[in-house]
Amino acid sequence: MSVSFDHLGVATESGADLAETFETLFDASLVHEERFGGMTVRFLDLGRGYFEILEPHETGTISQFLSRNGPGIHHVALRTADLDAALNRARDAGVELVDEEPRPGAWGHDVAFLHPNSTGGVLVEYVDGASAASE
Amino acid sequence: MSVSFDHLGVATESGADLAETFETLFDASLVHEERFGGMTVRFLDLGRGYFEILEPHETGTISQFLSRNGPGIHHVALRTADLDAALNRARDAGVELVDEEPRPGAWGHDVAFLHPNSTGGVLVEYVDGASAASE
Repeated sequence: MSVSFDHLGVATESGADLAETFETLFDASLVHEERFGGMTVRFLDLGRGYFEILEPHETGTISQFLSRNGPGIHHVALRTADLDAALNRARDAGVELVDEEPRPGAWGHDVAFLHPNSTGGVLVEYVDGASAASE
Repeated sequence: MSVSFDHLGVATESGADLAETFETLFDASLVHEERFGGMTVRFLDLGRGYFEILEPHETGTISQFLSRNGPGIHHVALRTADLDAALNRARDAGVELVDEEPRPGAWGHDVAFLHPNSTGGVLVEYVDGASAASE
């Protein structure tokens, strides 16, 4: 099993403006935009991996994160070719899982989150490599 | 000018333990370790880019971050082949700079930070591509 960087999730109340800033500063092109889970989700190509800009339109985990922390980095997503194996390995290591099983995520990926309590305060999302857009 | 993901900076008080966790979970091998700026800095290979685990031994920005936020993601580092051009572009876009000029960073890289006020709360570090370890 191996994993690699897929994207950095960034929470904001101003998704379009932040996408424009990242495009201007980093030449990070908007490659995907959708409504997902009460948010507008924008993916910007970062050469190796993506920014995922998360702009909530309803109360949920991202709006709560914004209320508590303000805008900024929310999670890191790691891509794995075998999501079930990755979750089993995390379970075997005693890691607390947010998602016991893969579930549908943005951009058509299956995903599962690990709890930051087990990973040094870092919220880690596994993204299934078979469906990951960065193929 | 183009940039790409180089590493994710993670602040912790337990660098060796967290490196072991990331190695166990993600097969992320420790590829560089040094004392730098009053910290132990550990780089773990992440397939595309690195984790940079920052463990402070003195009072400074990372220990202050830990006191304020607890452990977790501190910054994202983007690699650019032309750091001066990247800083000029940021200046032209009205971005507040933490470092007006490149300065020596960990692992022998020249680096410069942008202020998170200008980048959606995301602390961005530019890493000079000519010296970046991810060549």
